[in-house]
Amino acid sequence: MKKANKKANAAIIIIGNEILSGRTQDVNVVSISKWLNKLGVKVEEVRVIADLEDSIVKTINDVRKKFKYIFTTGGIGPTHDDITSKSITKAFKLSYGYHKEAYKILEKYYGAGKFNEGRKKMAKLPGNALLINNPSSIAPGFIVDNVYCLPGVPSILKSMLGELSNKIVGGKKILSKTINLKTIESEIALPLGKIQKKFNNTEIGSYPFIKQGEVGVSIVIRSTEKNLINKCSNKIKNFIKKKKIKILERK
Amino acid sequence: MKKANKKANAAIIIIGNEILSGRTQDVNVVSISKWLNKLGVKVEEVRVIADLEDSIVKTINDVRKKFKYIFTTGGIGPTHDDITSKSITKAFKLSYGYHKEAYKILEKYYGAGKFNEGRKKMAKLPGNALLINNPSSIAPGFIVDNVYCLPGVPSILKSMLGELSNKIVGGKKILSKTINLKTIESEIALPLGKIQKKFNNTEIGSYPFIKQGEVGVSIVIRSTEKNLINKCSNKIKNFIKKKKIKILERK
Repeated sequence: MKKANKKANAAIIIIGNEILSGRTQDVNVVSISKWLNKLGVKVEEVRVIADLEDSIVKTINDVRKKFKYIFTTGGIGPTHDDITSKSITKAFKLSYGYHKEAYKILEKYYGAGKFNEGRKKMAKLPGNALLINNPSSIAPGFIVDNVYCLPGVPSILKSMLGELSNKIVGGKKILSKTINLKTIESEIALPLGKIQKKFNNTEIGSYPFIKQGEVGVSIVIRSTEKNLINKCSNKIKNFIKKKKIKILERK
Repeated sequence: MKKANKKANAAIIIIGNEILSGRTQDVNVVSISKWLNKLGVKVEEVRVIADLEDSIVKTINDVRKKFKYIFTTGGIGPTHDDITSKSITKAFKLSYGYHKEAYKILEKYYGAGKFNEGRKKMAKLPGNALLINNPSSIAPGFIVDNVYCLPGVPSILKSMLGELSNKIVGGKKILSKTINLKTIESEIALPLGKIQKKFNNTEIGSYPFIKQGEVGVSIVIRSTEKNLINKCSNKIKNFIKKKKIKILERK
């Protein structure tokens, strides 16, 4: 694992034509990002790419040098459009074939008689891959260097994240605090911008929302230091009090 | 607009820390992709990047040469973390300042007395930008060359897509047909792969799902030719009949 000069950051690569076409709403980014936040790893980029070998190889080779951890989702099933394993093999210039351990796990699960071509394909992995245990549907994910390959089905992916937690070396946990206001952004832009300038180690985000006809703004303060978040939050609360802006109770 | 050698393809760039952190579930990719499908434009890549000038400039300059259309969402509001206009200006090496038309629209809407700093910021755009009308909350989006900048709030974004349709020159409309099966992927992988090989001008996707305890597979056939989709669909229906697999009625 290359660790030198890399912060505890990550990129997520969503592999799947169904996400690009708008047919399927991705929900895996939220699952992975929230899980990584708790481990102190910050997701700095997400890419959604097609089920094309060339795209996968190029993208993986581009991002794996830039980020400490790469998580891919999708394309590790038994059908013709599942080409993640083969493409990762190519990206790393490894050998491609049956992975002994994966083969055993799948053969044992399906039983020798029902271990057909499609199922066997899920045991074909890059040469030196480490397996990621799949407690819900058996077919394992895998790790090559800093690239972690997970399935696309959200419930299966979620069940596998827990199995991975002890393999991730994160930094300090990223904390956040949200203040929801009954206002519009242009009313608070100036004082909020000034506070962000003072607190350059916190990240202040401003997100307008419309919910059930109600217009509001969520201010989100993020930092690894609880102390800084509280100080920053107090500064914000001071000016919204002066401006007589209402704080909303909202999840 | 550069048109030479570019297919009717597109990339979507989602600008926003709130998506990367998992705080907010992006839904704009689905909206934009579905709208583009109807116009005959295929989304070939999506990237989610941070509210950082450097990231935005690099990403835009990378993708704008590769795809015919680039759509960005987010970062065009009045607060300190809204840096899309400034970053697009930098990417194209243009001048940055008040856009006469945008300034007029916003001043008229808010009234001279209430046209404060934050609101004025939304009129600061790249020099030669064309405006995208915003029927729901007035502040316009903008176009520079092949880059179309839209807001992040989903309902506002949706209201603006209609305004843009006549500016997009697409290819043939991309059609699709879905067949939902009560099966698992490994049961159909082999015959499905063979059909994909025969029909190399259609895209056959296989997507396992778990819904209300029911396990199934959606097969999605996509092509610009209805004729090809039907032929391909018949081939698939033939083998699922032979295998006695049940077709599910499912949206």
